[in-house]
Amino acid sequence: MARPIPRIVRASATPILIGDPPLLNVLGVHQPYTPRCIVEVETDEGAIGVGETYGDTEYLTLATTLAESVVGQPVTALNGLTDLAYSAAGLADDAAAEFDPAGLRGRRTKTKLVRSVVSAFEIASLDALGTTLGLPVHALLGGKVRDAVEYSGYLFYRWANHPVDAAPVDDWGAALDPEGVVAQAKRFATDYGFGSFKLKGGVFPPDEEIAAIKALARAFPGQLLRLDPNGGWTVATSVRVANDLDGTLEYLEDPTPGVTGMAEVRHRTGALLATNMVVTSFEEIPAAFAADAVQVVLSDHHYWGGLTATRELAAHCRTYGVALSMHSNTHLGISLAAMTHVASVVPELRYACDTHRPWQTEDVITEPHVFRNGAVDVSDSPGLGVELDRDALATLHERWQRMDARDRDDVAAMRIAEPEWTQPPLPRW
Amino acid sequence: MARPIPRIVRASATPILIGDPPLLNVLGVHQPYTPRCIVEVETDEGAIGVGETYGDTEYLTLATTLAESVVGQPVTALNGLTDLAYSAAGLADDAAAEFDPAGLRGRRTKTKLVRSVVSAFEIASLDALGTTLGLPVHALLGGKVRDAVEYSGYLFYRWANHPVDAAPVDDWGAALDPEGVVAQAKRFATDYGFGSFKLKGGVFPPDEEIAAIKALARAFPGQLLRLDPNGGWTVATSVRVANDLDGTLEYLEDPTPGVTGMAEVRHRTGALLATNMVVTSFEEIPAAFAADAVQVVLSDHHYWGGLTATRELAAHCRTYGVALSMHSNTHLGISLAAMTHVASVVPELRYACDTHRPWQTEDVITEPHVFRNGAVDVSDSPGLGVELDRDALATLHERWQRMDARDRDDVAAMRIAEPEWTQPPLPRW
Repeated sequence: MARPIPRIVRASATPILIGDPPLLNVLGVHQPYTPRCIVEVETDEGAIGVGETYGDTEYLTLATTLAESVVGQPVTALNGLTDLAYSAAGLADDAAAEFDPAGLRGRRTKTKLVRSVVSAFEIASLDALGTTLGLPVHALLGGKVRDAVEYSGYLFYRWANHPVDAAPVDDWGAALDPEGVVAQAKRFATDYGFGSFKLKGGVFPPDEEIAAIKALARAFPGQLLRLDPNGGWTVATSVRVANDLDGTLEYLEDPTPGVTGMAEVRHRTGALLATNMVVTSFEEIPAAFAADAVQVVLSDHHYWGGLTATRELAAHCRTYGVALSMHSNTHLGISLAAMTHVASVVPELRYACDTHRPWQTEDVITEPHVFRNGAVDVSDSPGLGVELDRDALATLHERWQRMDARDRDDVAAMRIAEPEWTQPPLPRW
Repeated sequence: MARPIPRIVRASATPILIGDPPLLNVLGVHQPYTPRCIVEVETDEGAIGVGETYGDTEYLTLATTLAESVVGQPVTALNGLTDLAYSAAGLADDAAAEFDPAGLRGRRTKTKLVRSVVSAFEIASLDALGTTLGLPVHALLGGKVRDAVEYSGYLFYRWANHPVDAAPVDDWGAALDPEGVVAQAKRFATDYGFGSFKLKGGVFPPDEEIAAIKALARAFPGQLLRLDPNGGWTVATSVRVANDLDGTLEYLEDPTPGVTGMAEVRHRTGALLATNMVVTSFEEIPAAFAADAVQVVLSDHHYWGGLTATRELAAHCRTYGVALSMHSNTHLGISLAAMTHVASVVPELRYACDTHRPWQTEDVITEPHVFRNGAVDVSDSPGLGVELDRDALATLHERWQRMDARDRDDVAAMRIAEPEWTQPPLPRW
């Protein structure tokens, strides 16, 4: 018997600030607090679904607008969300694209901004629909093909503490050399059981990072290792590193900026290259795939536009013989749940996904995910299988109201410690 | 609250023979009866879903095997169907590909065979799930973005009657020249309101078909027209026809066989080329898109692997700036319902879809679709929105048991009228 399709009667976009350790990358260092946006949709049947996306000002502005526009829409109306976002915001797509330094998210276009915001509403809608129907999100996506999703331990060079007061503290200590990186990895292995490690590089001269990877290889024989300097190297440097680490790395991520450079590194070394910078939108696929510039696309469901879009990316990768894995940016449990659901439905996923999760100790869900042997179980509970922790959300939102951090800016954060610091040119080495 | 995910407790694949008029094409003529396969899945909650696919022997064999294998599976387990089909049938994919003359379905691979069969089970599962949840299939696919789907009137050269006894008869009469084609189109326009016409060409020398298109253009000023000779022409002939009909055709479909030839026609004429022959699987996309061999892909959800696969094809087309529309092969109301649901969820669909529907007067659903202004309303009823007519199914299955038609063979059918007829080489003119 037909049931009325549930409609959205309330939606909200709540900005929060979450604590972030002083993790280093090619642009600078993570700020003490980073913005995220928590989306809720509530249906006329009382089901509430949640989503999460980037919380920088332009994302938040669009999310706030879209939250008004989705009211009255069927909660199943996912295919119309993108057009709704464009019209709600009075945006027209444009071809203009520049590199987006915020969190190293690749090129910046209005399309990608819209997709990043739409993703949170798509996921919140799926969560609400699943909750209503009593079905997990993966079942709404054609069903899981695995019961757990493997993640990779995300190693960072880091300081012990932020160079400012009123910043979050932790007990990880500094990691600024091979010994520090190996120590960090050992704790990761003990606490989470990760079967692979990715080191965020581009921080120190390449030889130091080569040494760190080799130290990891010695400390963890047989462990899969990845290195990601975020486009920090020239082609020549990339070729040298790739050759030096040939046989040691599972893949090399974004050694050099741009499709042409990546393709040349690939051509000259045969190294397996992953990316979260040169292929971050459908528009970038044709040129990059044609040039064999990337062999592993690290998808971020936020800026690809959600879970269905991630599956569409997976289909492109399958067609072109490119592997798929998953990028992670500073995220909480809602996004981890979404990542896990979509990763569970893509048959050809063969590389452990990235996650920042160990670095984020705050969350807005009542029961943060547990990593067992580096993997997260795929929830069979209705919807995403997470419950919003309203007290935590209120606390983190109150922090956003109280503090003036609005946009992620790793360059500015670094400038506090090094006053002469400016955005480094890419490549740097 | 979590609900148990419904599981399949019974599945079946029922072969039927449906009446088909003596429609002509480059290979020969439609046989009096053509095989289809009707798939049913029943869940432990008593919901029954239906699907439909090609019924030729190798499809039927695989469908029968897969019907056994899906028993016990969650009805939501769509992502695992393909692997299940491979293992159930003991098939390994192979790269071997040859042109499939049966119904002009493009190249023949095991992959495509598997996809064609899987599609019927995917759709039957969606139908059962939608029925259980009270939601239309389009809502399970992210929601319709249009309330009706436009179809194109599918004009055929045809004889008045089959050259054999015991064949279905109708009152359309012969259409073997421009006047006959225009008369057919007028009846199509009156009865169905189609806003565009496609003429199946490749039957007569190209000048006769050019004359037919021009006659249609005179009789229906402003009407969108398409011509499809199924790869029957050389590049030189294709160029000549494309130039002669420049400004008259909405698009030219498969004028010549193969990616290289299609690309050359495109390059030399700038004509908009559609295909249902050179891009019929994901594997064929890269070369064809790179060569600009096709500008409109006519998807057939059966051989692309179902409704989610069709959306993945749509995503490829969007990425590469290629348009999408829909092919049709001799089909009944279950497939038309599936076509309509998936067409309703693809935002960028801009060309009216093909349908053989007017030529198929038999059906296995209780209320065959009605075309209004050439369009079919998108059903909001649970599942596909069709009900199986068990009496009709039994009658058509009994015909399959009684008659010996097992595989579509337009060449053999033509040989009855023309004993010297053999499979024509493509291109023919």
